[in-house]
Amino acid sequence: MDRNAPVGVFDSGVGGLTVAREIMRQLPEERIIYFGDTARLPYGSKSRDTVIRYSRQIIRFLRTMDVKAIVIACNTASSYALETVQAETDIPVIGVINAGARTAVKSTHNGKIGVIGTEGTIGSGIYTEVMRKMRPDIKVYGKSCPLFVPLVEEGLLHDSVTDEIASRYLSELKGKYIDTLVLGCTHYPLLRSTLRRLMGEEVTLVNPAYETALELRSLLRQQKLDRPESSLEEEKYQFFVSDLAEKFTSFATAILPGQVKETRKIHIEEY
Amino acid sequence: MDRNAPVGVFDSGVGGLTVAREIMRQLPEERIIYFGDTARLPYGSKSRDTVIRYSRQIIRFLRTMDVKAIVIACNTASSYALETVQAETDIPVIGVINAGARTAVKSTHNGKIGVIGTEGTIGSGIYTEVMRKMRPDIKVYGKSCPLFVPLVEEGLLHDSVTDEIASRYLSELKGKYIDTLVLGCTHYPLLRSTLRRLMGEEVTLVNPAYETALELRSLLRQQKLDRPESSLEEEKYQFFVSDLAEKFTSFATAILPGQVKETRKIHIEEY
Repeated sequence: MDRNAPVGVFDSGVGGLTVAREIMRQLPEERIIYFGDTARLPYGSKSRDTVIRYSRQIIRFLRTMDVKAIVIACNTASSYALETVQAETDIPVIGVINAGARTAVKSTHNGKIGVIGTEGTIGSGIYTEVMRKMRPDIKVYGKSCPLFVPLVEEGLLHDSVTDEIASRYLSELKGKYIDTLVLGCTHYPLLRSTLRRLMGEEVTLVNPAYETALELRSLLRQQKLDRPESSLEEEKYQFFVSDLAEKFTSFATAILPGQVKETRKIHIEEY
Repeated sequence: MDRNAPVGVFDSGVGGLTVAREIMRQLPEERIIYFGDTARLPYGSKSRDTVIRYSRQIIRFLRTMDVKAIVIACNTASSYALETVQAETDIPVIGVINAGARTAVKSTHNGKIGVIGTEGTIGSGIYTEVMRKMRPDIKVYGKSCPLFVPLVEEGLLHDSVTDEIASRYLSELKGKYIDTLVLGCTHYPLLRSTLRRLMGEEVTLVNPAYETALELRSLLRQQKLDRPESSLEEEKYQFFVSDLAEKFTSFATAILPGQVKETRKIHIEEY
């Protein structure tokens, strides 16, 4: 495997760009191929079977781009598909769940952790399962927040309606006296200030993106797949979507440090 | 063509069931094959190309069930795909736009009509185009309401948050003194009481489902495709989806007059 090959990163849409951004920051020498499944998003309300099928198609596409490793930058796809696709794929594949779970378990003092995410992620119970394996006495309280993604996509990041909805979603978790809250969906860090205000300063908010980039770095080093040095190159970061390439480009330019020049549209169902 | 063949009805999900329900009421002798594209919903935020590709696949699937006519029970797909698929298909295909537009034009007294719908439907400008062809002096004001579908799917039909969002979306239209409002998305009739309260009694709310069923009836009669009489049959109404068949079954049972026994899941991307 070529150490200069790119890392593949995928998500149902733009949310995974928060993970890509962390990889760019922490592993500045690595090349990235990003895919957002904008023709079939969202994943959070779809079934396990469907999300596994979609993930397999995306991995087949990324392999045609000769990636050396794959990051599933979507909590729902990580919940449902990670184990299955790891078993089928001969390059390393990591998700965002383990990293988020590990940080939360390290951070908690009272052993009470809240997790918010899509219906798929919360319904799968995966965060509870993974955290209990790390520390069996931990108490995990999950809460799905289906309106957060549409509210973020509508741009209502700082808005009374978002406050009201967030306050309803979080009241149950507040009643459990959690001291750590995992933002188990890549859109949620964009609501950080609202969540911070509602949960109070004493609750640690965990964004799995940061630790996922760390995990990728140690994995690449360990397998001698890390890129020795960066070179000047035209297409260090390449972006692909299944729909609405231009809309994606402007969103990506807003989230990422540099200008995104171009996003290419592909027919993902052909893979 | 067999007059006893079923009518195909499709939507991105459950919304089109409000159209299917009208067909069941007004054309009780007809058989129906319903397809909901639950693996790829929503359509309202996706591109014209993608919605046309999805509609073509669904029509290929419905043709394998030997339908005699097709109703596109989704405003976004009607906006983007109707003309294209009509030109490619040798059986009658109708959408929901014409029927809704016709009712609105008939109903208005002051010539000012509002249309609410998804970003796709409103962005396409199709309601304006169709209504202006019917009556060139008419003024049409479109407003996309992207949060209505998630709010309905979250069950917040009668809720202060829905009131607040609806009030923001509609304030612009109220300022135009419209006397008729087209509910240009099949989910919106479920918000009728909120919309009614906000718009006031003097504004007529138009639900295209009713008139679409009327249009289907006259079309079938005219082409001698109407079913002469109903027989007792096991599978008068058949339901297919691309994901989450059980969830669909319970939703359909809540919306339709009779019990829905079974929904079958198919892989729509193979068509």
